[in-house]
Amino acid sequence: DEVAKLLELKAQLGDDPGKGKFVLKCPKGTKDYNPEQMSIREGAFKTIISCFKRHGAETIDTPVFELRETLKGKYGEDSKLIYDLQDQGGELLSLRYDLTVPFARYLAMNKITNIKRYHIAKVYRRDNPAMTRGRFREFYQCDFDIAGQYDAMIPDAECVKLVVEILTKLELGDFVVKVNHRKLLDGMFAACGVPDDKFRTICSSVDKLDKTFWDDVRSEMIDEKKLDPAAADRIGTYVKLKGGLDLIEALLTDEDLKKQKAAVEGLEDLKLLLKYCDLFGILDKVSFDLSLARGLDYYTGVIYEAVLQGFAHNPSAGSDEGECQCRQCGWWWKIRWSGWVFSILESRANSSNVKTRTTDTEVFVVSAHNGLLEARMKLCNELWDADIKTEQSYKKNPKSLSQFQYCESSGIPIAVIIGSSELEKNIVKLRIVETREEVEVPREKMVDEIRSTLARLSQQKTQNNASGS
Amino acid sequence: DEVAKLLELKAQLGDDPGKGKFVLKCPKGTKDYNPEQMSIREGAFKTIISCFKRHGAETIDTPVFELRETLKGKYGEDSKLIYDLQDQGGELLSLRYDLTVPFARYLAMNKITNIKRYHIAKVYRRDNPAMTRGRFREFYQCDFDIAGQYDAMIPDAECVKLVVEILTKLELGDFVVKVNHRKLLDGMFAACGVPDDKFRTICSSVDKLDKTFWDDVRSEMIDEKKLDPAAADRIGTYVKLKGGLDLIEALLTDEDLKKQKAAVEGLEDLKLLLKYCDLFGILDKVSFDLSLARGLDYYTGVIYEAVLQGFAHNPSAGSDEGECQCRQCGWWWKIRWSGWVFSILESRANSSNVKTRTTDTEVFVVSAHNGLLEARMKLCNELWDADIKTEQSYKKNPKSLSQFQYCESSGIPIAVIIGSSELEKNIVKLRIVETREEVEVPREKMVDEIRSTLARLSQQKTQNNASGS
Repeated sequence: DEVAKLLELKAQLGDDPGKGKFVLKCPKGTKDYNPEQMSIREGAFKTIISCFKRHGAETIDTPVFELRETLKGKYGEDSKLIYDLQDQGGELLSLRYDLTVPFARYLAMNKITNIKRYHIAKVYRRDNPAMTRGRFREFYQCDFDIAGQYDAMIPDAECVKLVVEILTKLELGDFVVKVNHRKLLDGMFAACGVPDDKFRTICSSVDKLDKTFWDDVRSEMIDEKKLDPAAADRIGTYVKLKGGLDLIEALLTDEDLKKQKAAVEGLEDLKLLLKYCDLFGILDKVSFDLSLARGLDYYTGVIYEAVLQGFAHNPSAGSDEGECQCRQCGWWWKIRWSGWVFSILESRANSSNVKTRTTDTEVFVVSAHNGLLEARMKLCNELWDADIKTEQSYKKNPKSLSQFQYCESSGIPIAVIIGSSELEKNIVKLRIVETREEVEVPREKMVDEIRSTLARLSQQKTQNNASGS
Repeated sequence: DEVAKLLELKAQLGDDPGKGKFVLKCPKGTKDYNPEQMSIREGAFKTIISCFKRHGAETIDTPVFELRETLKGKYGEDSKLIYDLQDQGGELLSLRYDLTVPFARYLAMNKITNIKRYHIAKVYRRDNPAMTRGRFREFYQCDFDIAGQYDAMIPDAECVKLVVEILTKLELGDFVVKVNHRKLLDGMFAACGVPDDKFRTICSSVDKLDKTFWDDVRSEMIDEKKLDPAAADRIGTYVKLKGGLDLIEALLTDEDLKKQKAAVEGLEDLKLLLKYCDLFGILDKVSFDLSLARGLDYYTGVIYEAVLQGFAHNPSAGSDEGECQCRQCGWWWKIRWSGWVFSILESRANSSNVKTRTTDTEVFVVSAHNGLLEARMKLCNELWDADIKTEQSYKKNPKSLSQFQYCESSGIPIAVIIGSSELEKNIVKLRIVETREEVEVPREKMVDEIRSTLARLSQQKTQNNASGS
């Protein structure tokens, strides 16, 4: 019978019967979000957005595709990963590859130079992602950007604060925000004797240190990139360093570094950043790490990156998409989150025994016997009009058992039960689904009683969670 | 200087300087949502979603593109409006044209036969839309679907209830939900002497009655579709009818109609529907209207459509996209909203004098003179940690005036002001931005005082709105 209904549906959708078959898959690298996954995703978005809003951010949205010309030349090598739309006449279009270029187009088009906005939307990359690690061809980016001409390290410190707030609220476990500075890296390379024209390529070798061993990075520098082994070894001593204010002070007295203007400027910036982080009460979450060398193509200032500790889906094992990254480029500060957050939250939900609720339904109206449809409808209407989230069976004469089973399987906290005796006495029976405890309540007190019961149940749950953790 | 910054940004985005220029437009038929528009959109979504959730709906999400094969043959003539992705190797893909086919694919793929879900997402049509009327090539659909085998008119009545709730909460003005029945239309055509093979084409003529005059529809039926003029005139007498239970009762005694089994079944269904609508307290919003003949391609039961009254952007002036439509097709009930809701809300916001706030910021921390950056930072941190939405200037030494102007222009209700005397006395000054009234508050009572002030302001606003309307 189910198959018959699906065939019917298929026919209703206009598919010629007998001609081909309905393709039952998502495109490669994409997935559906089922109600459980949506529940997790919406919970995470709510947390992230509330943090963005706590810091006064607005939000904007842009189309899913842009003129191909707008994206052209913005992504270097990765341009081949852009999805182009077919030329069907008119403009040539491509799906957005990230939210940065559309944001830049938006700013330029509207001549905006000051804005603090977030944008949460899907982006598209024709990559061959490791879907088991939560990476996809269609995935969310959550970008928070501050654009404007501001004073040194003030927006930077707020970005770090925001990252700490979000990771704390998401309860993803212990984490650290690594920070470094583009100018310090440049100064360090100069101090180590790296020729100017090799800065970028050597930097991209250093970038691999979170995934590979120093020896391999060293070999790459020397064998592939023809760096003087002495320079490589000097880099090696620096990039192993991590710490806090002490390390900054020590490096400011380093004989080689202090001759490099860029290095000193970078260190002074970092010193100020750490001071502001201290004022924001987050110094213990920040680690100055000289091996952090991400995203150096067009970033000019502080770079930072949040790394979760001790989690199987360690994002730092992934690629660019796997991190929460913050960068400063001139007058632009950026925080970017990607889909890995959801992968982590999903796998945690799967491994716990607690069922994720997919509806917010508070009350299910149960009829104790046949012939009560109209009474149920009136009752539902009362509850809806009182803004109580209410469901009932769409069958005329549902079985009692199946009604209670539905409450249990979908986690509805309260059943309101009516039968002819309740109707006669003008009462309802309220049942707490979990404990099966029942009370009789006069009809005119029903709404109030439901509200106070819901409040009590929610309080109990909060207390249980608190004592359980 | 602004131009210089934009050029810098452009360069940072990797655009080769001198090569071509940054294209400053959205693709045809699409638009950006600026913060004001997003604020309106999110407000409307929140309202709509809260109504969906009040009725126990879950939500799902599907990819923005589907295998081309999945969409093939589902949209008849309109297939030419589908955006295809370029063949870049691998699967052939197309952007979704609506949310129905992806939902059907999802149900079939997961063998789901019972679900009540909503899906709010953008869909894509290579149409030539009237953008001035709020119609676009990329636009939102809000679909609510109930799938399952249920008893007659129970889900239908809930769909009508839901539509009434949403339109009431959105405060879009007076409206009516027109209802009709596919079987009644079929029976009526038979009773009027329309040959079986002309049902569909005559039906599509009737469908035009909300946009054109009866005389034009009649001519089309007779001249183009070769219908017997007598049959056309009989249709004419029926399709002018609208009313409630009385009309249904009258038609059930109509000599011609009562010979048609389909017509009687349709009328009995409608009678039941109106009875249930009465139980749901919405009978006054429902109008049984024999001219309503929408979406008859694969709908088998009740059809309904909400029509706003007396609004310039009358959605019924648009096409398919312009309405809130509900249909029942076998075991499937559907409500669909489209982007016109936002157009209406936007044009209303534009025509009112009230500025739409784009942030939720509650407090702006103002420094009374130079040299207070660190004190401001500490204060912000206290407020953030107390979950108060707080902003400050990112300048080291901002001017007082510009800080207050920012509060006023962005609608921030409270300014917290500090200067050296406040710091000495360990107090802050709270200023209500709108009235400029100021109070001094001990630092340790600041958070509580802010909370109670916010509550008071919000209450005042609610009262003003209530008395103003």
